[in-house]
Amino acid sequence: MRTVGHPVVTADWLNARGRSTLLIYGHYDVQPPDPLDQWKSPPFEPAIRDGYLYGRGAADDKGQMFVHVKAIESYLRTSGSLPVNVKCLFEGEEEIGSHNLYRFLAGRREAWKADAAVLSDMWMLGPDRPAIAESLRGALSAELEVRGQDRDLHSGNFGGAIHNPLQTLCEIIAKLHDSRGAIAIPGFFDRVRDVTPEERAYMARVGPGDALMLEDAGALLGWGEPGFSLYERTTIRPALSVNGIVGGYQGPGAKAVIPARAAAKLNFRLVPDQDPDEIDALFRRFVEQITPRTVRVLVRTLFRARPFVLHREHYAVRAARAALRKGIGVPPEFMRIGGTIPVAHLLQEELGIPTVLMGFALPGDRLHAPNERFLLSNFFRGIETSIHLLAELARL
Amino acid sequence: MRTVGHPVVTADWLNARGRSTLLIYGHYDVQPPDPLDQWKSPPFEPAIRDGYLYGRGAADDKGQMFVHVKAIESYLRTSGSLPVNVKCLFEGEEEIGSHNLYRFLAGRREAWKADAAVLSDMWMLGPDRPAIAESLRGALSAELEVRGQDRDLHSGNFGGAIHNPLQTLCEIIAKLHDSRGAIAIPGFFDRVRDVTPEERAYMARVGPGDALMLEDAGALLGWGEPGFSLYERTTIRPALSVNGIVGGYQGPGAKAVIPARAAAKLNFRLVPDQDPDEIDALFRRFVEQITPRTVRVLVRTLFRARPFVLHREHYAVRAARAALRKGIGVPPEFMRIGGTIPVAHLLQEELGIPTVLMGFALPGDRLHAPNERFLLSNFFRGIETSIHLLAELARL
Repeated sequence: MRTVGHPVVTADWLNARGRSTLLIYGHYDVQPPDPLDQWKSPPFEPAIRDGYLYGRGAADDKGQMFVHVKAIESYLRTSGSLPVNVKCLFEGEEEIGSHNLYRFLAGRREAWKADAAVLSDMWMLGPDRPAIAESLRGALSAELEVRGQDRDLHSGNFGGAIHNPLQTLCEIIAKLHDSRGAIAIPGFFDRVRDVTPEERAYMARVGPGDALMLEDAGALLGWGEPGFSLYERTTIRPALSVNGIVGGYQGPGAKAVIPARAAAKLNFRLVPDQDPDEIDALFRRFVEQITPRTVRVLVRTLFRARPFVLHREHYAVRAARAALRKGIGVPPEFMRIGGTIPVAHLLQEELGIPTVLMGFALPGDRLHAPNERFLLSNFFRGIETSIHLLAELARL
Repeated sequence: MRTVGHPVVTADWLNARGRSTLLIYGHYDVQPPDPLDQWKSPPFEPAIRDGYLYGRGAADDKGQMFVHVKAIESYLRTSGSLPVNVKCLFEGEEEIGSHNLYRFLAGRREAWKADAAVLSDMWMLGPDRPAIAESLRGALSAELEVRGQDRDLHSGNFGGAIHNPLQTLCEIIAKLHDSRGAIAIPGFFDRVRDVTPEERAYMARVGPGDALMLEDAGALLGWGEPGFSLYERTTIRPALSVNGIVGGYQGPGAKAVIPARAAAKLNFRLVPDQDPDEIDALFRRFVEQITPRTVRVLVRTLFRARPFVLHREHYAVRAARAALRKGIGVPPEFMRIGGTIPVAHLLQEELGIPTVLMGFALPGDRLHAPNERFLLSNFFRGIETSIHLLAELARL
């Protein structure tokens, strides 16, 4: 199906009259393969080493999308039919924001109704530790530009008399967190939903500990909002990251310039029940308050996405748990993810389809990085899981 | 005279036995002409419009260097000799730090001894307002790098748990000034020499007011150390400017990255009796104190230059004042300059030559910018001034 960007690939099998309908989402686009020199085999020539398939997209998401395709194929080649109705929705722009998928679905909401959706664009908790994602954080990306005097100035001639926009940008950014590492925007935490002590205890038992989080990050010390583990800070608590700063001279050596403007890219991660529009307004109001009269500030919103929370009690979740137990051989846990998958919110909240996020990649599979890989035994166990999911959905 | 870079051009006339020796410094290199599209005539084709000569280097410094060459030529063509001994020292690397001039002079200090030096790489206070530069600020340029975790991280997966080096850099920079706009490094002001109330009154009478400074800067409001005018803040008070920041994603749109490192270029301007080495040490110590344990900081010193102060009572200054009064027709004022000319300190303090800085360009002549120009009537009045300078030095 053409879009103004990459086509959406669709398929359906709707002959299970009276049975429920499963929507399978995947994406066939991938992250750029650079830096190329760090790949041990070419990123677009699949290579098998030590039981892993290596290549860009092996796990994110071609390999995991293919898991479901092979499950359907297995059913059709053996039974000749599927136990439930199936609609496949594969897009080619997940890594760049899924904008054309939104447009594609905007006029076709009725056609894409389903009783459950599954997407496998993620990982398990570890080897033999299957998981269903319980939550994803939402996002708000913004650009903060500081404009000062109307031209670049020589810092010899004017240094000390003009409020440098680059310095001012730093001063504004420094005020966005308090000294303890919590976000300092008034009202920012007002709608953050408290997670119960029982759920936090579950997270502590099942999720990665601080030591593992730090190892994964390549960091020696943690940081952030007091009173929460690193896993909690990245999943059930919101965050604000500075992703980049552009301003002044960036070449080798020195150049004595006071730049006329400077800008930062900022990225919020939001949790239920924070609303990206409301956070955008709070952020803009706070920036206005802390901006000195010597400069002007412009805020541009680049991207907004709402948090996702699993409907735990839905029968699709029960079916997925049973399928994972049978396919992987271990009962799954619930895990929380700090990242954002806007499509999950789109499917569940806007199309009204309870959505199950269950992946077969492993935490060390280097999604988005060189030498991306997918454990072949997990590929096959994933196919078995997907077959069981179809069967379980037929039973319920 | 060859160097490993651009050659140094020298000339001398040493036949005025028993008379004093004047060293004339100039530089034949220029700033890059970009942005080219803003030039009304090509930067390297001299064009005369409305009494101005337009072209890159017209004022900085080819035109002003040529003033002295023409004065020597005038004397030799008419009198057949000069009234004093003259040594010309013209370099080709002033705009990139004069490093090879330093090396060139290192082994030739005796040969370049002189009783006075003159350099005209600057401007007058205004039309018909000749000036002798009384002080230049020194400089210390440094790069401040913050290193955090050992790889770039996804801000979805890790945002909130890792102290972002780019954020930390902003927090460090924000602490370098206090809330009033004064530099907050302990000990930084200890050696700043107080300027007498009489000198400040003189500066207020002769120098640019705040309104003119702001107009020149294209700024609406001033900023900086309380208790001083903008002219004072840029000349008799030190300053610290952030010249550039490099860190994270700088392209269009958003990228959810927590960069592993971030760096800023910083530029101090120093006044008597601040010592660049001591300021470097104070700066490093303070940065260490305010750096959180979550990151490491590296400081690289790029450039150091000492402040310059005129020897007001030297006979060369008296000669220059008389020459300006005769050549321009108006008695000169003393002015202070916020920028740095390392060569002035080199000549006066290291070679021991009392050095006079007197220029013939005007504040609006766009040195370093497109459409650089030099008022031709000032070129001719400059030649007359230089002729008078030679004569005055012979008399003293």
